[in-house]
Amino acid sequence: MSSSPAGSPVGSAAGNGLLDRRIFLSSGLAVLGAAGGLTLGSPGVARAEVPSSMQYPGNPLSGYGVPAKYESKVTRVLIRSQPGTTGSGASRSPLEALEGMVTPSGLHFERHHSGVPDIDPEQHRLLIHGMVKRPLIFTMDALLRYPMLSRIHFMECSGNSQLMYGPNPPPLRAGEIHGLVSCTEWTGVSLRMLLQEAGADPAASWLLAEGADAAAMSRSVPMAKAMDDALIALYQNGERLRPENGYPVRLFLPGYEGNMSVKWLRRIKVTSTPTMTKDETSRYTDLQADGKSLMFTYPMGVKSVITRPSPGVALQGPGLYEVSGIAWSGSGTITKVEVSADGGQTWAQAALSAPVLPRALTRFRIPWKWSGSPAIVKSRATDSTGETQPTRDTLVAEHGTNVVFHYNAIQAWSIAANGEAKNVYA
Amino acid sequence: MSSSPAGSPVGSAAGNGLLDRRIFLSSGLAVLGAAGGLTLGSPGVARAEVPSSMQYPGNPLSGYGVPAKYESKVTRVLIRSQPGTTGSGASRSPLEALEGMVTPSGLHFERHHSGVPDIDPEQHRLLIHGMVKRPLIFTMDALLRYPMLSRIHFMECSGNSQLMYGPNPPPLRAGEIHGLVSCTEWTGVSLRMLLQEAGADPAASWLLAEGADAAAMSRSVPMAKAMDDALIALYQNGERLRPENGYPVRLFLPGYEGNMSVKWLRRIKVTSTPTMTKDETSRYTDLQADGKSLMFTYPMGVKSVITRPSPGVALQGPGLYEVSGIAWSGSGTITKVEVSADGGQTWAQAALSAPVLPRALTRFRIPWKWSGSPAIVKSRATDSTGETQPTRDTLVAEHGTNVVFHYNAIQAWSIAANGEAKNVYA
Repeated sequence: MSSSPAGSPVGSAAGNGLLDRRIFLSSGLAVLGAAGGLTLGSPGVARAEVPSSMQYPGNPLSGYGVPAKYESKVTRVLIRSQPGTTGSGASRSPLEALEGMVTPSGLHFERHHSGVPDIDPEQHRLLIHGMVKRPLIFTMDALLRYPMLSRIHFMECSGNSQLMYGPNPPPLRAGEIHGLVSCTEWTGVSLRMLLQEAGADPAASWLLAEGADAAAMSRSVPMAKAMDDALIALYQNGERLRPENGYPVRLFLPGYEGNMSVKWLRRIKVTSTPTMTKDETSRYTDLQADGKSLMFTYPMGVKSVITRPSPGVALQGPGLYEVSGIAWSGSGTITKVEVSADGGQTWAQAALSAPVLPRALTRFRIPWKWSGSPAIVKSRATDSTGETQPTRDTLVAEHGTNVVFHYNAIQAWSIAANGEAKNVYA
Repeated sequence: MSSSPAGSPVGSAAGNGLLDRRIFLSSGLAVLGAAGGLTLGSPGVARAEVPSSMQYPGNPLSGYGVPAKYESKVTRVLIRSQPGTTGSGASRSPLEALEGMVTPSGLHFERHHSGVPDIDPEQHRLLIHGMVKRPLIFTMDALLRYPMLSRIHFMECSGNSQLMYGPNPPPLRAGEIHGLVSCTEWTGVSLRMLLQEAGADPAASWLLAEGADAAAMSRSVPMAKAMDDALIALYQNGERLRPENGYPVRLFLPGYEGNMSVKWLRRIKVTSTPTMTKDETSRYTDLQADGKSLMFTYPMGVKSVITRPSPGVALQGPGLYEVSGIAWSGSGTITKVEVSADGGQTWAQAALSAPVLPRALTRFRIPWKWSGSPAIVKSRATDSTGETQPTRDTLVAEHGTNVVFHYNAIQAWSIAANGEAKNVYA
């Protein structure tokens, strides 16, 4: 970000005011500024009055910090799916209030099937058994002694964005619709190493992972994934896992639908076939239009959403803006995000904020000179496997609207003349 | 991390049991395991008893999560430097309890000169004035409309590790000694862009940054840094800045000593010379052995510390361990971390955990087969400018022991036969 690329074009990149993604790095800004572009500061002089914060000593140091009281509205959005319960359901990350790629752990989405268990790490054990030479039981202290791996990865619930399968676009915010995705740094032990120690049978091609919650959340996992990049996760964003993210230990399967990364992990059983648990038969299968279901649809599709502007994050009059959003893919790295400001007629490539990591949220940004007329903005991500987000029409034509899971179509926001954004099918 | 490099050597990499950094990725583990290496699991069978966490529904969803109650001892370590005050001094990140590269914002170190001001973002303004064509005042809403940049960077107090200048090694933990360093994702507006908008005089080579705290924390910043990678930071780890990290807006100067990244930023004045504020004359100068002082010593030196094992994080008997730690440099990217287990006689290269980013904490790891005999472990980092950490003797010979600031010498921990680690000058 230290200098502008020599000879980079300054100006239009697609219809309805989308500008070259490099314009904010170049002298183009000044040109636009001279043309009535961005300047938002007011003419100013040093003010005589001293703010009250400078007149008295401030607040104390603290052992563990919390957000500013002025940000108290920035919370996870609680949506409970089981009436009469408090711990079953989901809470979503407020995507429209966040920036960058890292989600603070306090705002990481939640999805529980019977609440958040209170587990004493001294009492908790992880058992590896089944088709192994020697079944093993691990204390948490034993796991903490193993070599660790750290990786920044997103986690997405397979049911994220499911309201978008409905006949009418839900009049909600980005986080309320798509906020069952978050991105943090995960640190833990390679599952492959533990399976090798237990002497997993080479003929075994599956395993069962079971949680210590009251739902006994259970999923079958292909051995190939377990031997590839699966983690027995102990830390998140540097500190030990939060209770709602599986404390003291969870499975973490990069890129796979979130419920397979079984929280409060107590047992891994090596098996020859999938176990066909309740959690992969009665739910987490994808009911198609023809009445058949897809099972074991693991990687989350390539996807993106514009967070600024978005519902609740309005534009304030015509002028120069930055369109900002997040993109991700369970199958690899984001290679391209295109943005349209004319409802999908023309597209311009957005800048991707480094580091662009596999199976991690990737922040994209592009300048937009909004004329003040109604407009429809969209983003379209492509990943390293060559997959591109489908339109909603294409997704629905292929899978129907009973699916509930794995919605990854292009999101459109309409911008009204007053700058307000709204969810639309367009 | 998906396969072992073909033909990689398995076995010794340096004296006293340090093993090749790739051994945990290779079949070497099994070989070592057979020789009585790592296996920490106990022979196990599925237990009949169902843990209590599976017998009752768990706790509710929550709007903003907090750490597990079992981790209540993992806090910032409060060290107040001004008796009789509560808000002036420093609190340190508990480095020995953390993993990976990201510091959770709640555990990011603090250094305040007159406490944490309570600032209403609606009332706060940022003024850019001095040698500019048009002075500008920005509301926070105006700043939030600008294009943003996101970067993962460490922040380190220039006084970090200052106790190590003392005649005797302080008998403290890694975080208590070196915990005035943390690493988070920062998002904000390019300062260069705002200076261009204000029409900063090309002849001006400095600026003054002033905070809205009761200490009116003020530092002079070279214009070259301001026009390079300086951020007007608004977000940290995805959410708005925490109060103790400058809410609602701070300056952020990647790699420079932390106090220059002025918190609660209220004013930037473009100047022709350094302002010589109290904060750069009465403190934050480096008193040398000859009685002269170095001023304006900005970038933090290349540095590393082993966090596991370290004081309070003991080894549990002879056997295979992973040595884990963090390295960083204010001048660039970490290119190499070497570890010694024989007091510095021989060194082996540690593995660096991706992504390795400029001016960010970099996690290093290396396997170590500890014999059970007393040993001294050290780490030595090298950065992309070719700089390597000095020994303490070299640092002291060059700068004396009055310096207080910019201590970056190699850290040694002695490991006793009982596995306990201790800070030593060695």
